[in-house]
Amino acid sequence: MKPWDNVISEGEQQAYRAAGFGKPSGVGQRPALLIIDVQYRTVGTRPMPFFEAIKEFPTSCGEVAWDALGHIQELLALFRQKGWPVLYPHVAPKVRNEGGRLAEKIPGIMNIAAIGYEFVEQIKPQDGDILLPKKHPSAFFATALASHLIDLQADTLVVTGCSTSGCVRSSVVDAFSLNFKVAVPHDAVYDRSSTSHAVNLFDMSEKYADVSSTKELISVLQPIGSKA
Amino acid sequence: MKPWDNVISEGEQQAYRAAGFGKPSGVGQRPALLIIDVQYRTVGTRPMPFFEAIKEFPTSCGEVAWDALGHIQELLALFRQKGWPVLYPHVAPKVRNEGGRLAEKIPGIMNIAAIGYEFVEQIKPQDGDILLPKKHPSAFFATALASHLIDLQADTLVVTGCSTSGCVRSSVVDAFSLNFKVAVPHDAVYDRSSTSHAVNLFDMSEKYADVSSTKELISVLQPIGSKA
Amino acid sequence: MKPWDNVISEGEQQAYRAAGFGKPSGVGQRPALLIIDVQYRTVGTRPMPFFEAIKEFPTSCGEVAWDALGHIQELLALFRQKGWPVLYPHVAPKVRNEGGRLAEKIPGIMNIAAIGYEFVEQIKPQDGDILLPKKHPSAFFATALASHLIDLQADTLVVTGCSTSGCVRSSVVDAFSLNFKVAVPHDAVYDRSSTSHAVNLFDMSEKYADVSSTKELISVLQPIGSKA
Amino acid sequence: MKPWDNVISEGEQQAYRAAGFGKPSGVGQRPALLIIDVQYRTVGTRPMPFFEAIKEFPTSCGEVAWDALGHIQELLALFRQKGWPVLYPHVAPKVRNEGGRLAEKIPGIMNIAAIGYEFVEQIKPQDGDILLPKKHPSAFFATALASHLIDLQADTLVVTGCSTSGCVRSSVVDAFSLNFKVAVPHDAVYDRSSTSHAVNLFDMSEKYADVSSTKELISVLQPIGSKA
Repeated sequence: MKPWDNVISEGEQQAYRAAGFGKPSGVGQRPALLIIDVQYRTVGTRPMPFFEAIKEFPTSCGEVAWDALGHIQELLALFRQKGWPVLYPHVAPKVRNEGGRLAEKIPGIMNIAAIGYEFVEQIKPQDGDILLPKKHPSAFFATALASHLIDLQADTLVVTGCSTSGCVRSSVVDAFSLNFKVAVPHDAVYDRSSTSHAVNLFDMSEKYADVSSTKELISVLQPIGSKA
Repeated sequence: MKPWDNVISEGEQQAYRAAGFGKPSGVGQRPALLIIDVQYRTVGTRPMPFFEAIKEFPTSCGEVAWDALGHIQELLALFRQKGWPVLYPHVAPKVRNEGGRLAEKIPGIMNIAAIGYEFVEQIKPQDGDILLPKKHPSAFFATALASHLIDLQADTLVVTGCSTSGCVRSSVVDAFSLNFKVAVPHDAVYDRSSTSHAVNLFDMSEKYADVSSTKELISVLQPIGSKA
Repeated sequence: MKPWDNVISEGEQQAYRAAGFGKPSGVGQRPALLIIDVQYRTVGTRPMPFFEAIKEFPTSCGEVAWDALGHIQELLALFRQKGWPVLYPHVAPKVRNEGGRLAEKIPGIMNIAAIGYEFVEQIKPQDGDILLPKKHPSAFFATALASHLIDLQADTLVVTGCSTSGCVRSSVVDAFSLNFKVAVPHDAVYDRSSTSHAVNLFDMSEKYADVSSTKELISVLQPIGSKA
Repeated sequence: MKPWDNVISEGEQQAYRAAGFGKPSGVGQRPALLIIDVQYRTVGTRPMPFFEAIKEFPTSCGEVAWDALGHIQELLALFRQKGWPVLYPHVAPKVRNEGGRLAEKIPGIMNIAAIGYEFVEQIKPQDGDILLPKKHPSAFFATALASHLIDLQADTLVVTGCSTSGCVRSSVVDAFSLNFKVAVPHDAVYDRSSTSHAVNLFDMSEKYADVSSTKELISVLQPIGSKA
């Protein structure tokens, strides 16, 4: 059962299969983990239902974020054990005159309390990780992410965090365009809309990335040799 | 009635509204029209039901493409009359060793007959238009689109063509990130999945672009002065 | 007399003229000022001869920096008076694991005292200016500079700061590639090598930018209307 | 003796050394060869003195191009023998409305005869090589070069062709910024100005690349294992 089976009809899935979409890319030999925007501003300072959570931060995703958080921790533990690189693209605090189109489309996003920008304790960076402040959806846009991945000789990106339909989706498309192999664990990404979450997973699975559960992905990654 | 009203529940839409998403960007003073991938490979050489169409080209979208084609023609007529710029990001024929991740995810896409790459007669470029061959989802990736738009001093992009969940979506995200105002006429973009079409329109409307009907968009663009 | 006349022979200059290089781009209607890397790390905390200056910061350029500083102030005064945008691409403090190739080629650049990263008092930003931290030569690489310029609808960049052969040169090439008109005031950019300074000005003048004195440039910019 | 020793004074070189510039990057394990713009438009259809050559194509570099051509052939032979990737960034024919700033700075560049765009016979591509048409100085700008290099898992670029002060220089800066190791064989790149050639080699050597003779570079590359 795929996460989108209740949203994308069997006929539509058949249309993609008939057209030859959705083949697997597989993983390579040098994975890197992206943990995107897992800051209190998307998770809340504690698990709360969505409509309560957005009173704390309008960008909160509510309880689904905490479910995903557990799976991100599992992946992070594997990457720590293997000594593989972990990168944290994250939203940088907004400055008054930097809004552009973002401030027009989502004005509330310009006024988040400072604590909202802190990394969530459970997955926080450690010394040696790479921090990438960003102000746009894609983790590649206006950041040195590509330069870091080339320096690390990464060939495979595991993309986690939020939102599935926003920064995760656009980072995955750019990673695909740059020819990295991309794996998206569907239970380690989260979104404020369950329908949009499911459909974006479907889109990514058909066109840009291999989508599986965290458990399945860990079983695929586990046998790969650690970084020399 | 929005194109996504039957797909995204009222509760989910309310979640976005409560979080302050989906405000309009409006249009500027210097619009440019993008007609993305409107080639026979996505439309077919004649209107056919989807499962018949993909026998001709696996990348065909079937009858929905022909419905959108009429609306693209209306927008194109307005841009011709105003003397505004029209740009054609389009899929360049594939070369054997250029597949990368694309050839892994969608192998069928590597073997499309030459006529599939021709522009559809109804919207074909005329002398003075800008043609942008591309090999990736976004019309900005590995193309000079940004350079052309800066040279044209465009401030607003009208994005049409296909697929809604593929090249349209990723081009819209990049245009938004570059701070262009973006308008997406929902009946002038098309996709092989009606659910994915609707949800991607919702995502774009909430975060990156103003989504309306072609008719509404034309009424907004009509009063803008022509390019001096 | 051009700044490169004693370095590039008349025969070489004639070769470029005969080949049709070096025509002027002119300026547009919406200039923006880039002040690149004018931080104490490139200027020193006071005017000192080069070999003394590099004892304070190995990246110092010595007395030539202070000469240029006066001309940057003149341009900045004009932009303040006109209400035109001023942007500060500047070197962000280095982090241990972010060196990549830079740390290999110029290891000393990784250990500059914190005060070196402060903006020089005479040209420091004021509220409303745009600050762009960067870690690569070009002010466009891995920054949102293009997004800001599109949002500002800038059509012309005046590029000042340092070094002529490093960050100035590479920013000018990217600005040219993006189709901005580029003006480089030769006495408002500086470099640790006078020969390299002169030849890079020649290269830019022949291929990418209009090069003149600050005085000449101000006389060209002065008549342009202020931003509405 | 370095190629810039007669152009950059000992004092200036000492200034760079004292400031800690110019350390070697070395080469990695997976080199790729870039042959930039080695088309008849930069070389001429036969060796001719500069002022005669530019009558054929204003973009010709004259006899220095033919000297470099021999060295590029040596490097190409090594890459063929090793089975390493060879990529050809090259100037695409100009289209009337695509000039932008280039057409303003160098109008003659817009009207080159078709044969000028053909690859020079001695180094022409073979089946399996990657061709990258471009319209801007850097081989990375508006091309899929980065995507190809990531797909090839290249870690080192050997950059040859022309012009040293134009497309070579800007490609080298972008390659450096992306964290590829960069080697520039000084006798396999060429330029219409000997002074600018020498100074750009100096700039690249101090900041972005390892510069050596083709002979030295081949001795460094020869021991590296062939691509599996």
